[in-house]
Amino acid sequence: MAARSSPRIVTVGETMALLGTPDHCLLRPGTGPTLTIGGAESNVAIAAARVGVASAWIGRLGDDDLGSLIERELLGQGVHVAAARDADAPTGLMLKEHRHGVPTRVRYYRAGSAGSRLSADDLDPDLLGGAEIVHLTGITAALSGSARSALRRAIELGRAGGAAISFDVNYRATLWTPEAAAPVLRDLATAADIVFAGPEEAALLLGGDPDPAAHPYPWARAEEQARRIAALGPRTVVLKLGALGALALADGAVHRHAIVPIEPVDPVGAGDAFVGAFLAELADRRPLHACLAAGARMGALVCAVRGDWEGTLDWAAPDGPPADVRR
Amino acid sequence: MAARSSPRIVTVGETMALLGTPDHCLLRPGTGPTLTIGGAESNVAIAAARVGVASAWIGRLGDDDLGSLIERELLGQGVHVAAARDADAPTGLMLKEHRHGVPTRVRYYRAGSAGSRLSADDLDPDLLGGAEIVHLTGITAALSGSARSALRRAIELGRAGGAAISFDVNYRATLWTPEAAAPVLRDLATAADIVFAGPEEAALLLGGDPDPAAHPYPWARAEEQARRIAALGPRTVVLKLGALGALALADGAVHRHAIVPIEPVDPVGAGDAFVGAFLAELADRRPLHACLAAGARMGALVCAVRGDWEGTLDWAAPDGPPADVRR
Amino acid sequence: MAARSSPRIVTVGETMALLGTPDHCLLRPGTGPTLTIGGAESNVAIAAARVGVASAWIGRLGDDDLGSLIERELLGQGVHVAAARDADAPTGLMLKEHRHGVPTRVRYYRAGSAGSRLSADDLDPDLLGGAEIVHLTGITAALSGSARSALRRAIELGRAGGAAISFDVNYRATLWTPEAAAPVLRDLATAADIVFAGPEEAALLLGGDPDPAAHPYPWARAEEQARRIAALGPRTVVLKLGALGALALADGAVHRHAIVPIEPVDPVGAGDAFVGAFLAELADRRPLHACLAAGARMGALVCAVRGDWEGTLDWAAPDGPPADVRR
Amino acid sequence: MAARSSPRIVTVGETMALLGTPDHCLLRPGTGPTLTIGGAESNVAIAAARVGVASAWIGRLGDDDLGSLIERELLGQGVHVAAARDADAPTGLMLKEHRHGVPTRVRYYRAGSAGSRLSADDLDPDLLGGAEIVHLTGITAALSGSARSALRRAIELGRAGGAAISFDVNYRATLWTPEAAAPVLRDLATAADIVFAGPEEAALLLGGDPDPAAHPYPWARAEEQARRIAALGPRTVVLKLGALGALALADGAVHRHAIVPIEPVDPVGAGDAFVGAFLAELADRRPLHACLAAGARMGALVCAVRGDWEGTLDWAAPDGPPADVRR
Amino acid sequence: MAARSSPRIVTVGETMALLGTPDHCLLRPGTGPTLTIGGAESNVAIAAARVGVASAWIGRLGDDDLGSLIERELLGQGVHVAAARDADAPTGLMLKEHRHGVPTRVRYYRAGSAGSRLSADDLDPDLLGGAEIVHLTGITAALSGSARSALRRAIELGRAGGAAISFDVNYRATLWTPEAAAPVLRDLATAADIVFAGPEEAALLLGGDPDPAAHPYPWARAEEQARRIAALGPRTVVLKLGALGALALADGAVHRHAIVPIEPVDPVGAGDAFVGAFLAELADRRPLHACLAAGARMGALVCAVRGDWEGTLDWAAPDGPPADVRR
Amino acid sequence: MAARSSPRIVTVGETMALLGTPDHCLLRPGTGPTLTIGGAESNVAIAAARVGVASAWIGRLGDDDLGSLIERELLGQGVHVAAARDADAPTGLMLKEHRHGVPTRVRYYRAGSAGSRLSADDLDPDLLGGAEIVHLTGITAALSGSARSALRRAIELGRAGGAAISFDVNYRATLWTPEAAAPVLRDLATAADIVFAGPEEAALLLGGDPDPAAHPYPWARAEEQARRIAALGPRTVVLKLGALGALALADGAVHRHAIVPIEPVDPVGAGDAFVGAFLAELADRRPLHACLAAGARMGALVCAVRGDWEGTLDWAAPDGPPADVRR
Repeated sequence: MAARSSPRIVTVGETMALLGTPDHCLLRPGTGPTLTIGGAESNVAIAAARVGVASAWIGRLGDDDLGSLIERELLGQGVHVAAARDADAPTGLMLKEHRHGVPTRVRYYRAGSAGSRLSADDLDPDLLGGAEIVHLTGITAALSGSARSALRRAIELGRAGGAAISFDVNYRATLWTPEAAAPVLRDLATAADIVFAGPEEAALLLGGDPDPAAHPYPWARAEEQARRIAALGPRTVVLKLGALGALALADGAVHRHAIVPIEPVDPVGAGDAFVGAFLAELADRRPLHACLAAGARMGALVCAVRGDWEGTLDWAAPDGPPADVRR
Repeated sequence: MAARSSPRIVTVGETMALLGTPDHCLLRPGTGPTLTIGGAESNVAIAAARVGVASAWIGRLGDDDLGSLIERELLGQGVHVAAARDADAPTGLMLKEHRHGVPTRVRYYRAGSAGSRLSADDLDPDLLGGAEIVHLTGITAALSGSARSALRRAIELGRAGGAAISFDVNYRATLWTPEAAAPVLRDLATAADIVFAGPEEAALLLGGDPDPAAHPYPWARAEEQARRIAALGPRTVVLKLGALGALALADGAVHRHAIVPIEPVDPVGAGDAFVGAFLAELADRRPLHACLAAGARMGALVCAVRGDWEGTLDWAAPDGPPADVRR
Repeated sequence: MAARSSPRIVTVGETMALLGTPDHCLLRPGTGPTLTIGGAESNVAIAAARVGVASAWIGRLGDDDLGSLIERELLGQGVHVAAARDADAPTGLMLKEHRHGVPTRVRYYRAGSAGSRLSADDLDPDLLGGAEIVHLTGITAALSGSARSALRRAIELGRAGGAAISFDVNYRATLWTPEAAAPVLRDLATAADIVFAGPEEAALLLGGDPDPAAHPYPWARAEEQARRIAALGPRTVVLKLGALGALALADGAVHRHAIVPIEPVDPVGAGDAFVGAFLAELADRRPLHACLAAGARMGALVCAVRGDWEGTLDWAAPDGPPADVRR
Repeated sequence: MAARSSPRIVTVGETMALLGTPDHCLLRPGTGPTLTIGGAESNVAIAAARVGVASAWIGRLGDDDLGSLIERELLGQGVHVAAARDADAPTGLMLKEHRHGVPTRVRYYRAGSAGSRLSADDLDPDLLGGAEIVHLTGITAALSGSARSALRRAIELGRAGGAAISFDVNYRATLWTPEAAAPVLRDLATAADIVFAGPEEAALLLGGDPDPAAHPYPWARAEEQARRIAALGPRTVVLKLGALGALALADGAVHRHAIVPIEPVDPVGAGDAFVGAFLAELADRRPLHACLAAGARMGALVCAVRGDWEGTLDWAAPDGPPADVRR
Repeated sequence: MAARSSPRIVTVGETMALLGTPDHCLLRPGTGPTLTIGGAESNVAIAAARVGVASAWIGRLGDDDLGSLIERELLGQGVHVAAARDADAPTGLMLKEHRHGVPTRVRYYRAGSAGSRLSADDLDPDLLGGAEIVHLTGITAALSGSARSALRRAIELGRAGGAAISFDVNYRATLWTPEAAAPVLRDLATAADIVFAGPEEAALLLGGDPDPAAHPYPWARAEEQARRIAALGPRTVVLKLGALGALALADGAVHRHAIVPIEPVDPVGAGDAFVGAFLAELADRRPLHACLAAGARMGALVCAVRGDWEGTLDWAAPDGPPADVRR
Repeated sequence: MAARSSPRIVTVGETMALLGTPDHCLLRPGTGPTLTIGGAESNVAIAAARVGVASAWIGRLGDDDLGSLIERELLGQGVHVAAARDADAPTGLMLKEHRHGVPTRVRYYRAGSAGSRLSADDLDPDLLGGAEIVHLTGITAALSGSARSALRRAIELGRAGGAAISFDVNYRATLWTPEAAAPVLRDLATAADIVFAGPEEAALLLGGDPDPAAHPYPWARAEEQARRIAALGPRTVVLKLGALGALALADGAVHRHAIVPIEPVDPVGAGDAFVGAFLAELADRRPLHACLAAGARMGALVCAVRGDWEGTLDWAAPDGPPADVRR
């Protein structure tokens, strides 16, 4: 139990209560949706902790029961929590609808939430200064001006302490327009050492797609995108390619990794799980292919269980699915 | 079944999905809070429909599952629904926490909700023009500028069709300050024919309490408050006095009615139920004491069951608790 | 919201409370079967309302909680309800058992139910006289003599108002013998403008199967059956062919439509959903292939969700399964 | 475990599946009522078995899952089961509604049930011939002509084997009128050795109440009623007086017993539990006051738990409530 | 209903309460695992009873609620119960975890349980002396010295009454080492008339595998193992070969039977169900291929439902899956 | 959030998974008992953490899901966890039965549990050496010889680091006899600085009750007992007197405190909550009456909610019940 170790991976962002509707069921009066928690950054922290690397989450919660529930659940997952409690704004909430034949839909109740009011003052300088990796996402940048300030301050505090800055683009169309987002996300990517993005997010960052004639195949397109992002500054760029797998570019070398082929039960959160396990292995100075393999396995575990991060609990199962074997 | 009759009581306001935590239980991951709906104005419409007077609710809902759920539930309770669906904002949500030894707490997720974006354009002129009573509350006035405009337009449309305007002060401290609220609420009360208020709301409306030396007892204080509110314009003023009962002043005459003495299970919504049954009887030109008796009985039924309005379903039970008999 | 529009499709029949056992589970003391409602005619009305055509259901319910529950649920689905309440007989009930490897079994508790005591006096002449389509089924004919009288009266009232008469054979072996049913069903089909039947029901109606040597293939056999039923009088005949699809014969022309290929979760009610959507499109004077396509899509939606009609709620989902795309 | 002992108390009657609604909750679509079983005669058999006297239940069940469930549950309670299975009629069902402020309401789905088709041919002569006590009720007499024949045959078979005949009047107003019931119930009481009745049932049996001037107090009135019933033939008469307790008249001597004063959770079935424990002690030749005490204690246990008989499971708890101590 | 017939198949062993976690769900505070019962020997008894052969279970239970629950459930399944109640030790418990991608794991809480303290004194000589088949397993031999003594005494009592002794090797690695188990299991197999074993259990019994060069295929290997076990004494040997099926050697003749090919939901308990149905048919002097077919069908039914034996309830379903038809 | 502070109160003991039966309900197959965790020492640690004093729990868990669940839940409550994981023994389990009219019964499944195999080697010397208070109980002493050794070693390690040793007698009759327990408990009390006991435990420790003639009243008797225990060595002695309150003797001075008068829902764990809050205040050098008041308030909170410690979550509720006000 490494609970008292100093957190090596520190994340900053909004975590919300998550209400999920039962599968194949109507959301109707009298029924009970299940309650859990979720947030891209805390999902990453949970995955990292499960791999065995001490992690922390910094955020802002309402001074209410849902806030306490988030705090307790993250602590319970072994994540250090440094959360300001806001007496004037409620903890954010999201509703996840499982419907047949259509993608899972997520509806947010985060306008004016405590988490969206995150500010630089909420940051714990010791935690960020003592981190090896500071992980941030583009979601936080979309929440408010004060949240954007908090991102900038987190980068300064991390850098000052010698941490690598990790940034997952995580563009959310429900929070801002591509036009508003692009310059902000590009600045953050430029300031980072490690960048994670999907192909569309990479195109948004780069102001357009590579010439399809020159890069007709997805792996090649991803490699070209990774090179261009690396040209902005980051030393390591990871392209998450969904059903295809992931491609990493580090110090000029390219690494590809297929997904672990499982039957997904709930794919939401798989990307965060990938990032968390990847960063945990990176913090332990494992070779890049091992980082990718850990990310792929953790992503598969999260897909196989309901919930945004609950599948990470199967990481340590000795007889769990290996990274390279079909279920 | 009077479902096709033209609605005689028409309400305008915000209705939200309502998540309730189980009694004596922790809100913890894995548990399921129960889902229902609630809103002061639609609670009134449900209670009126139960008494047998056709009613309608006008509002604005998100174009999402929770919005559909509200629409279906209100229709199912026999309330006509005229709801604009907002593609850009979610249906509001509230969380009701039942804790031991402390009053029930309600937490709102209505900032930026579809309901708070209600505007005069959302009103159905035919419905309002055809009503006998148009019922409004001070909650709507607190939601947004466009919602306040909708209130004003609803009054105009109702008046033009010959409807009486009913107004429940319903001051909500979580939505606005007393300073901001007082002039708005006073204007609305002045424009109304029937006003409902509690003693503190009356004091807010009137800019202060009656001289306690002159009116040392609560019934006397309430009578004095009612007279002063009537002086603003309304022909009928009803003071809701909680455990004491209710006092009505109509055309100068005072009527008092005690509550139905039951053991309350969940008091939230009892005031709305009172108003709904009172207005239904008033629409049927019943004498004032019958209006008060119906209100008291409906309020007791709602207190006796979990949920803001669910107890109204017992109205027609032939062997239900009469208005004047202790359980 | 078309809730106040005058119902264009009016159905008459018995609706029951429906208790469903959980899948792969024993029905054992202490467990809770889920409660919903169902009835062939009200299923049709719900599906039509979902497509956007105002519909109504006429029937007889017990003066009990299950009756109120049916009334509320149908209203909530946007169906106008005109239900007599019977103080002397309970609302009918059915039990739906889901077992592995065997077809779903349905057990009825409708002997002596209020619904089976439906009589011509329970019919609302205005509703039936104002309808564009009056939809009836052979189930009602099997319930009692008074219910059969109600069918005849409904046809008269509909005809008098200019409505088309729709009739779904819906033969139920648990309610009467083929010998008893055949002449009654044939009379009703003869009196109808639109007839829906399965191949076995068509054989029952026609007193035998077409010569298999002459019609060896199912589509050809169905076409022959449709022609023979049309010879009895109806202008439009629709053969529901299960996994094959459906065939419609209208004014001498034949239209075929394949099913929407989905993995069924619960097929009960799919036929009713097909009929409801078909009639709704027909009422809107859509071409026959559009009626068939709407029916096929609605049937698929109902198959994909537990419950006899609950899947109809997905009709309006913009990203739902299209009529011609495999999930 | 006395499971293989020959049943000493044998009952005949209808047992039904029992659906119970949750307390203070609406019966609404999506919720799950709980499922258990109940029947006056099998409740008696369960209570007797719990006291340690081998008992049996004879009846008729549908050849369906609810029938199997009843059979399994009774066997599980240690009651021998001899049930004919009817392929043509379903197992009966009842719905128990718990509402605030009003008595529990029970709604039956037993018209045409398998149990109501009980006939003399369904009786197991060996079981009845080997019994010490044969227990019957007036409910069975109300079900059908064949059920009444079964009662007469059960009396003959019991008498032939030397059994005492026990009869609980159990008048059910939903099954027949007082006029129809009175002569049948009187005949059965006359044929019995032991009769159980409430004051109203006694009045029905006797064709009227004792002169209130002569018997102004309830204990005295009950004693007079017991004496008049004894004059019809039975050697032992027990008047169940609700909150007052019970009075037994045996061989001319009167015994009174107060109830065990508990806070009732669900009083339905308490009378059956009383009878079962009373008969069990009687079969063991315990003195009459011990029979009454056992009955009172078992009745209290059943009142203290949801369900018609489930409270009997606490009989053997060494630290359970004694018969004469307030909780 | 054969409940009162004298048990023809009598089993001895430990039955435990069984807590099962929901599928694809975390075991987390606040959730409710489901409760049922299980035990190899009582599973066999239940399956035999379902086929229609009266059976009994002898064991030792705690004098607690879980013990009573086991007793009630077995009685409810039609199994005669002869259980000593131990005031000093609790009823055993097991926890069954369903996880994705890994085999179901079972965790026992039986150290020091009442069941493990079974002794020869707990045996009912009449039951064992009157049996046609006495069924024992190697699990009981692993529980304690007194339990082993009980096995020996059960064999003596059964033999004395002319019963055939049936023995299922049922080696449990969590209870003892192969070294400790082998001689004990061999002795028990030698003393038996009928032996059931899997291939690995057979190898354990026989002190090694047959020469793979001489027996390269599984059916041939199983036949060789069966012959060698038969050489120890038993007249009938059945090898359970999992997905392959089963092979029986009786009086020198070999019979093979494929499994019923179904999609398994929960395979635990399928072997016991096989044995129970096999023995029931054997007791009825059915030919060996019929015994194997019944075993295969019952095993398939148990696989198709959650729970160790619950699927046996589908045995009598007239439209259930036949033994030779794919679902 | 003090999660990273060094634990000031460190406890050692066994924590178990806790299955609770629903109130007024039968424990029957098919129902789901709820799952949570409990253990006297970790209950104390949770209560201390809630008051704001960093705490830790040291113990031994199975390497299984229940062990992980305990670890996650304690972390989630803000308790530092240092748990050895035992691959050869399962995590302990207890079953809590709520029955009417009788005290809650607890049944343990801890024979051979991982927790009972706690040994001195499992102790974290840094944690114990850095503590201000080391809290131990008599339960651990009853588990095994190695657990007793662990207690002795924990005292040594605590003393060496300057910690005060706290000891709660916690005699458990189901684990050992008074004769076996008395000398062990007396030795532990003698070695402690702070001792908690009930009146019966004090009598066990002291080898008998004070002369009732000399100390006829309970407060006086408790004071005498406290003085005698203090004579063994401890500087502070706290007598927990149930419904009466608690008495503390410190440095010769006596302090009495009444309970907070609430209606208890589930009293189990109230004593642990008292101890945890008392010790937390003591660690903060608050005066003794403040320690007693905090203990009384925390005990009341735990009584008011289902579960052994869940009520501690209400400690920080600003509008929760104060220590001196009746609900």
